[in-house]
Amino acid sequence: MQKKALLRRLLEKQNIDGILITDLTNVRYLTGFTGSSGYAVITKNHAVLATDFRYQEQVRYEVRGWNIKIEHTERSKEIKNICDIYNIKKLGFEDHNITYGFYRKLVKSGIKLRPLTNIVESLRIIKSPLEISFIEASVRRAETAFRKLLPFIKAGVTERKLALKFEELLKLEGCKILPFEVIVAAGFRSALPHAKPTDRRIKKGDLVVFDWGGECEGYYSDMTRTILLNGSNVSKQKELYYEVLMAQKKAIESVRPGIKASAVDAAARGYIRQHGYDEFFGHGTGHGVGLAVHEKPVVSWRSKDTIEEDMIFTIEPGIYLPGFGGVRIEDMVIVRKNRAELLTSLPKKLKIIEG
Amino acid sequence: MQKKALLRRLLEKQNIDGILITDLTNVRYLTGFTGSSGYAVITKNHAVLATDFRYQEQVRYEVRGWNIKIEHTERSKEIKNICDIYNIKKLGFEDHNITYGFYRKLVKSGIKLRPLTNIVESLRIIKSPLEISFIEASVRRAETAFRKLLPFIKAGVTERKLALKFEELLKLEGCKILPFEVIVAAGFRSALPHAKPTDRRIKKGDLVVFDWGGECEGYYSDMTRTILLNGSNVSKQKELYYEVLMAQKKAIESVRPGIKASAVDAAARGYIRQHGYDEFFGHGTGHGVGLAVHEKPVVSWRSKDTIEEDMIFTIEPGIYLPGFGGVRIEDMVIVRKNRAELLTSLPKKLKIIEG
Repeated sequence: MQKKALLRRLLEKQNIDGILITDLTNVRYLTGFTGSSGYAVITKNHAVLATDFRYQEQVRYEVRGWNIKIEHTERSKEIKNICDIYNIKKLGFEDHNITYGFYRKLVKSGIKLRPLTNIVESLRIIKSPLEISFIEASVRRAETAFRKLLPFIKAGVTERKLALKFEELLKLEGCKILPFEVIVAAGFRSALPHAKPTDRRIKKGDLVVFDWGGECEGYYSDMTRTILLNGSNVSKQKELYYEVLMAQKKAIESVRPGIKASAVDAAARGYIRQHGYDEFFGHGTGHGVGLAVHEKPVVSWRSKDTIEEDMIFTIEPGIYLPGFGGVRIEDMVIVRKNRAELLTSLPKKLKIIEG
Repeated sequence: MQKKALLRRLLEKQNIDGILITDLTNVRYLTGFTGSSGYAVITKNHAVLATDFRYQEQVRYEVRGWNIKIEHTERSKEIKNICDIYNIKKLGFEDHNITYGFYRKLVKSGIKLRPLTNIVESLRIIKSPLEISFIEASVRRAETAFRKLLPFIKAGVTERKLALKFEELLKLEGCKILPFEVIVAAGFRSALPHAKPTDRRIKKGDLVVFDWGGECEGYYSDMTRTILLNGSNVSKQKELYYEVLMAQKKAIESVRPGIKASAVDAAARGYIRQHGYDEFFGHGTGHGVGLAVHEKPVVSWRSKDTIEEDMIFTIEPGIYLPGFGGVRIEDMVIVRKNRAELLTSLPKKLKIIEG
């Protein structure tokens, strides 16, 4: 397995005898195991996957090429036991995942530890052809569900009813799990970037933000569209929409291998700043999507990531005017040789719904 | 606020000047804030809730009695800043929540830290009358949805179709979020305690395990019922069911304030052992339920918790025969003066569905 080989390179480099992977998304990435409890240990010659009783059947049909171990006692003792069996003197661990409390337990059990940062994430950031096809399928499912939702969007329906229908449609398309609860936020509530759907009825003149994702084989998609319910005085809503759309276009056009992720953020943010809205765009421009719906690369002013070919991430600037409403437009892109290619295919002309 | 006062008692006891709460469920419990990013800091005279831009509107209508701070830079720097403003020389933190990596960042920023264990969890373990009524409503919603699902259970329908319908019914009852994806596991798959629904069609003679939960105001419920699709030779299925039911009864009857949670586990496990099935009951007997669907107390052989009045937890023994099928029966109970009172009201006589 190539993934194991890539990790094993770290053993010598970091002068350790084993690597403990506890982040369950990373465990899934490496082994295929989808249970909610478990961890992996890799040494030069061995690869162990441990989980508890509840998954003893599931793990056997999901995982090939790993020694399966079913836990019988406290996790820190089980890990110590693995270290003894496989002669691991120094064990690397994922510093973003192990809590301080568990770290102390491992130390007390007598294991010598070395913190490691982003070791599996740095593999996950570049997508394989198989992963790309799963993500494309995940985008298609999400888009089809949105198209099927459109006839239900009209004045008088509540945010919650739309969100519920939307989630049903997503699952009917085949998404086994949704990356997050669908956001439907109308009117002044569209100015809350992470609003939960309420029993508020959408009405004429409302901007309505839909933010949702699909799934395929564990790989997610994430997209946002903002639509307008036509009303008597909606010129401000339209203006906002096209400001955001233009900012998004700038960011998409800026993407190519070798540039900083922060430069992609700056492309969108610079445009929004020029138009006087920068204080109303508080979040980052995007994030990677894969087995996690938020993963590397980070596309924000703080990011230290560099864009490379076969990365997949969102581009989603927004402008949020408190008390009035907000617009966000989010696409997923894949980085090709010299540009970004859109994975999202939903139209971006402002969708105006009558009545 | 009583909760703040209870935490402030720790300041002197632990010789610290502030407590950092980063576990988001604990943050919600203390402040009412439901966003997906933020933390709280409590000092003798101040209480600060910090979150990021995305929640700047939401936080203001959800939270009263806390100073709201919107983050503008890296979290470790923001926390250092709070320590400087409020003169916090030593800061307690939740050792189960902060990762080793973030701990190192805080140390590097110059904060003196002290790990604390289960400080908010020890408050959450005892439910207030308001919390109890939310949990009761959460149980009612979950039960009503199950009753409405019953007519859809018949031979030929897939696990996934049932699960999807079930989730829709739960949301229509008012559950804004589900504590976990509904489990529907039929036939040999019922022997997987945490099976995900598949496209397998349920058929005559199948045991079908339904494990699901409801929600009300952020408080969850959790229950399991196993039903039987009648078939020609189902005596083994029936025997298994009544073994589990009797084990559950023993555990429920054992509950009273002052006993060890491990004794409740032993009541169920002892019965199952006597009947020769102990190797097929690998998980614990139950767990607390509240703002998290798995919280204190732990009801297992390893638990060090003691049962007290107004605790709410599940009792859910099971027997899982690989390749054949499994049975689990799960109720929620609240601990009263000298006994457990059932919160779940669904019948427990084996439900046998014809055709």
